[in-house]
Amino acid sequence: MKAFAKVRPQPGIEQIEADRPRLGHHEVLVKVKVTSVCGTDYHIYKWDEWAQAHIKPPRIIGHEFAGEVVETASDVTSRQVGDMVAAESHIGCGTCYQCRTGNSHICERLKIIGVDVDGSFAEYVKIPDQNAWPIPKQAPIETASILEPLGNAVHAAFAADIAGNDVTIFGCGPVGLSAVALTSVSGALSVTAIDINDYRLNLAAKMGASKTINSKEKDPVAEIHSDTEGRGAGVVLEMSGNELAIRQAFRAVRNGGTVILFGLPSKEVQLNLGDDLIFKEAHVRGIVGREIFNTWYKVEALLKSGKLDLHPLITHRMSLSRLDDAMKLVGSGDCGKIVLTP
Amino acid sequence: MKAFAKVRPQPGIEQIEADRPRLGHHEVLVKVKVTSVCGTDYHIYKWDEWAQAHIKPPRIIGHEFAGEVVETASDVTSRQVGDMVAAESHIGCGTCYQCRTGNSHICERLKIIGVDVDGSFAEYVKIPDQNAWPIPKQAPIETASILEPLGNAVHAAFAADIAGNDVTIFGCGPVGLSAVALTSVSGALSVTAIDINDYRLNLAAKMGASKTINSKEKDPVAEIHSDTEGRGAGVVLEMSGNELAIRQAFRAVRNGGTVILFGLPSKEVQLNLGDDLIFKEAHVRGIVGREIFNTWYKVEALLKSGKLDLHPLITHRMSLSRLDDAMKLVGSGDCGKIVLTP
Amino acid sequence: MKAFAKVRPQPGIEQIEADRPRLGHHEVLVKVKVTSVCGTDYHIYKWDEWAQAHIKPPRIIGHEFAGEVVETASDVTSRQVGDMVAAESHIGCGTCYQCRTGNSHICERLKIIGVDVDGSFAEYVKIPDQNAWPIPKQAPIETASILEPLGNAVHAAFAADIAGNDVTIFGCGPVGLSAVALTSVSGALSVTAIDINDYRLNLAAKMGASKTINSKEKDPVAEIHSDTEGRGAGVVLEMSGNELAIRQAFRAVRNGGTVILFGLPSKEVQLNLGDDLIFKEAHVRGIVGREIFNTWYKVEALLKSGKLDLHPLITHRMSLSRLDDAMKLVGSGDCGKIVLTP
Amino acid sequence: MKAFAKVRPQPGIEQIEADRPRLGHHEVLVKVKVTSVCGTDYHIYKWDEWAQAHIKPPRIIGHEFAGEVVETASDVTSRQVGDMVAAESHIGCGTCYQCRTGNSHICERLKIIGVDVDGSFAEYVKIPDQNAWPIPKQAPIETASILEPLGNAVHAAFAADIAGNDVTIFGCGPVGLSAVALTSVSGALSVTAIDINDYRLNLAAKMGASKTINSKEKDPVAEIHSDTEGRGAGVVLEMSGNELAIRQAFRAVRNGGTVILFGLPSKEVQLNLGDDLIFKEAHVRGIVGREIFNTWYKVEALLKSGKLDLHPLITHRMSLSRLDDAMKLVGSGDCGKIVLTP
Repeated sequence: MKAFAKVRPQPGIEQIEADRPRLGHHEVLVKVKVTSVCGTDYHIYKWDEWAQAHIKPPRIIGHEFAGEVVETASDVTSRQVGDMVAAESHIGCGTCYQCRTGNSHICERLKIIGVDVDGSFAEYVKIPDQNAWPIPKQAPIETASILEPLGNAVHAAFAADIAGNDVTIFGCGPVGLSAVALTSVSGALSVTAIDINDYRLNLAAKMGASKTINSKEKDPVAEIHSDTEGRGAGVVLEMSGNELAIRQAFRAVRNGGTVILFGLPSKEVQLNLGDDLIFKEAHVRGIVGREIFNTWYKVEALLKSGKLDLHPLITHRMSLSRLDDAMKLVGSGDCGKIVLTP
Repeated sequence: MKAFAKVRPQPGIEQIEADRPRLGHHEVLVKVKVTSVCGTDYHIYKWDEWAQAHIKPPRIIGHEFAGEVVETASDVTSRQVGDMVAAESHIGCGTCYQCRTGNSHICERLKIIGVDVDGSFAEYVKIPDQNAWPIPKQAPIETASILEPLGNAVHAAFAADIAGNDVTIFGCGPVGLSAVALTSVSGALSVTAIDINDYRLNLAAKMGASKTINSKEKDPVAEIHSDTEGRGAGVVLEMSGNELAIRQAFRAVRNGGTVILFGLPSKEVQLNLGDDLIFKEAHVRGIVGREIFNTWYKVEALLKSGKLDLHPLITHRMSLSRLDDAMKLVGSGDCGKIVLTP
Repeated sequence: MKAFAKVRPQPGIEQIEADRPRLGHHEVLVKVKVTSVCGTDYHIYKWDEWAQAHIKPPRIIGHEFAGEVVETASDVTSRQVGDMVAAESHIGCGTCYQCRTGNSHICERLKIIGVDVDGSFAEYVKIPDQNAWPIPKQAPIETASILEPLGNAVHAAFAADIAGNDVTIFGCGPVGLSAVALTSVSGALSVTAIDINDYRLNLAAKMGASKTINSKEKDPVAEIHSDTEGRGAGVVLEMSGNELAIRQAFRAVRNGGTVILFGLPSKEVQLNLGDDLIFKEAHVRGIVGREIFNTWYKVEALLKSGKLDLHPLITHRMSLSRLDDAMKLVGSGDCGKIVLTP
Repeated sequence: MKAFAKVRPQPGIEQIEADRPRLGHHEVLVKVKVTSVCGTDYHIYKWDEWAQAHIKPPRIIGHEFAGEVVETASDVTSRQVGDMVAAESHIGCGTCYQCRTGNSHICERLKIIGVDVDGSFAEYVKIPDQNAWPIPKQAPIETASILEPLGNAVHAAFAADIAGNDVTIFGCGPVGLSAVALTSVSGALSVTAIDINDYRLNLAAKMGASKTINSKEKDPVAEIHSDTEGRGAGVVLEMSGNELAIRQAFRAVRNGGTVILFGLPSKEVQLNLGDDLIFKEAHVRGIVGREIFNTWYKVEALLKSGKLDLHPLITHRMSLSRLDDAMKLVGSGDCGKIVLTP
């Protein structure tokens, strides 16, 4: 089958011819219908420090996808050939403390599709049956491929008290944009979206932000304090991973407020813990992945409710063969989610 | 001054001529601009068991109001003559365990305006300066008089996790209707409103309910289970006080879900605690009044955000002199909130 | 093999000769080393209303046990022949909403060993491999058989804020006694134990209760208020299932306090929801079983820590053949936990 | 009166002759019976960066104290001459958002006794009546002077789930030592105390630590992981303010665990947010002061319960005139709490 892989420890991505995956216990084979590009994929493409530390080539990458089950291992009973499924990309070991206490997304031996095992930028990908989330046949397949980033936003935002609070979101990539839409319909008093890219800030406005700030032009911390009678935002969602933005996030939150850290910084970050966290009695919570499967139930129900308009989120559709172009587009920042068809 | 009081221990209400209140320490005198009728007032009017146990005539009743500060005690520094204010009707003692730990709304020696001290169905009413919540001069005064019931809804609804849950609301009086509007814009997946009065169910639909059920016509428990794949509602807000509704609330909630009890039953209620609470591991929380002043900040901010359309809530406007008509209208159920002008 | 079963729909228990269980997928066969008697077993023995509604004879009963794995199904990889294990008696379906969100103990299709499937009052019992919790070979096997009731106490007590609170426990059966020991070493300011049986109250004192009350002799509600400056207990654990005790539990809790309901009443209970729950803004939580496996990790760690002295808890040891005597002893109340050896 | 003040912007402390404070509204005058030295006082003594930024000389310092009310302002009704009181050193403005929502300890215009207003290293000190916590006349006055640091420990420790968790405490100054005693009797599975000073580690062992680590000799992170099957501590209390310790705190916590930050670092701290917080989904909470007065009620009740043995905590008693010696002793680290008598 055709696939895209990191073959060599250097920047770029290569198309390869690979064997169709052979199934192990409790696995299913999925024919990829749509797959989308995540920031993680771009880290691997660029071959930055994080990627060098986590990826052992050769590796087929990609982990956001939906498709059709075309084969099941003999001990699989919960899924059948013909099922349409979206994938949860975090694979728990099933036996560690975290897995046995309902937190397999922070499994002590976690494997991630497209990072630790072969991924979805390919015609076929194999996954554990537990990681295959059934989707209605009539659902738009495009939406199915973005359940994962939407799930990140749901998990991150609902880890704080959104209702009745002023919300600030740093970073308007696909997860940040999803969070804008989500918090806007979840009782936030205001949703302020911050980025350095006007294309993305325009998307944020379309998705429900009550205010957008280009932090290259204005100091977001001063703006937020001025908008909240000097108090600061009740909830700050940091979804950029940018060092300056992380520092601003802590300065923007009010005393007793909550900072959710989701965006991954590429290196260590220096913080004024005294003034910006301790004296404020701030709550801080790291968020990764999605709760398996609490988050998925909420995502499914939110989509069914019709409350979320995710239409502006997908800005580009391409053939998987143009993956290199897609990566360059992600690098420019002038896009929302890019959906690829094998 | 003119006022309406429970003068005798029997049904009804009488207009009286009373002295203008004289201020004690830390009190302000408010000239009532608008006052509205609460279910509690109707209990006192009917002189039911609850009222007989709690009211010692003569008592000027009424506790939902807004008006202008026209006099302040000499030790008052936080409010001035000319301030427009809405009232928090719960007066904490300031020295008990609850008051000193931020819960003065459940003060061990709580006094309620219009119940334990004279109230707002009058030209003037005196209240502690702390209970006078300042409102903008340009704000519609009508809205100010309903900050209290809206506050009840905010306190009750935000005591549960609304976002990402199916919500069921029993009872579509003004507080229930406010909760319909509030939960609809706070991330509820669905909001099902239940009552036995079609007038009120129509109001609920206008205020954002995704479904209404007249429980005289259909079994609400069966409907809710059928709407949630047999699972039950994640959050149930009981705002009717009706015994049958309370029993249905416990049957309607899903395993692990939350029941908020706000409506006051007139007598003891029989519950199947085993099947409906223990085996379900349900969370139950009693709610009364508003958090002072956490709830008020949220109410103010929600109104500022423009997200809540409370327009359908006020269905009748009258002169205070027609209080007896207003009471009869409340008894019929064919009304939302009734606002009175002295 | 020899076993004890409810053979007929009437009071009593009969010894029978049964086939050794045959294993299905993901099951293991356990040779029972010790098994203990739970209140549920006594309900079934007496054949009360609850038992009549839940048990379909013939059924081998008993669900608290520990033993040795003597056979495993071919697809079992996590347990081996020779392992010593204790059993979690709640079997989740693995596919419902509750199971997939980390709450399999309140599975929508829950099966309980000794109630819905054959149990442990027998030489052998089969259970899913997931339900077999490994225990150290050198651990006293007697303790292993009481991990389940201790787990109930852990799950119930830690559902409330014990540290820094006055705690009241209604009901001094084995779970109540375990809760006495547990809360005493978990920062409770005081632990008041209530029962109508002096034998059990003496055990409660031995296990750490700071005060015991025989509620046939004194009004526990008055005592608790008098001991807490009129405020009431911060946390009340109701572990008796007795109707009067449940009513007292709600009257004993302070404003804003927490009532944990664990004991199963045999019929509906009448409550004064207004005064005892709503005006108090009480928190109420139903508790059943144990969190799988969060509770088990905590139980194991508590035992390892050496902080809990459970020594007084096991008051009787007998041969399983004397099950009828054991049941009569449970009925008298003059016992703690009774451990049986097949 | 005699007092000790920072008179000049340089290291050291000077004895001065000052006027007895004159009372304003709602203030009381306290004759200091005992006062103790806090790390903050030592920062001011040393005149480090933090002190230079926060202290405007001349300022009488000191804020941990107990004494007798000898005068009250005319509008004070809650306290009387002759009352024995301990002091809450955080003075809220009473009108900001934090004060009006039950969080006056993080008031937006907070003033601290001995920092922003004159303090207790003097014969007399004036404080708002609200900040005077009554203590029994017969209570040992020495204990009363350490209610504040004990309150810090209570507020910090109870902000996390201690019961059923392995607890690690970095920093064995008086607050850290109090936290050792507190968590040991609050259900912690283990309490590991870490410092670089053996004198203090010995005190920690006396106060209940199950293990002590001198982090100059052993790597505490490796030790903690080895003691918890590689998982990490469920709760980490950082009470040293040392940069290296703060970094170790984040590395020592397990996935999903909680880090409480209480110790104030003297400058910015660099953190690996990705690996040590985000991928772990750690909870982090800044803690300052005490909840007013929730914490005080708990402190009082804990002392009454007799569960806490704070006896080893006070290691030195001196005349206030020897303040300079006391400061040098704090600098050496070879002390617990030092109590001074004016």
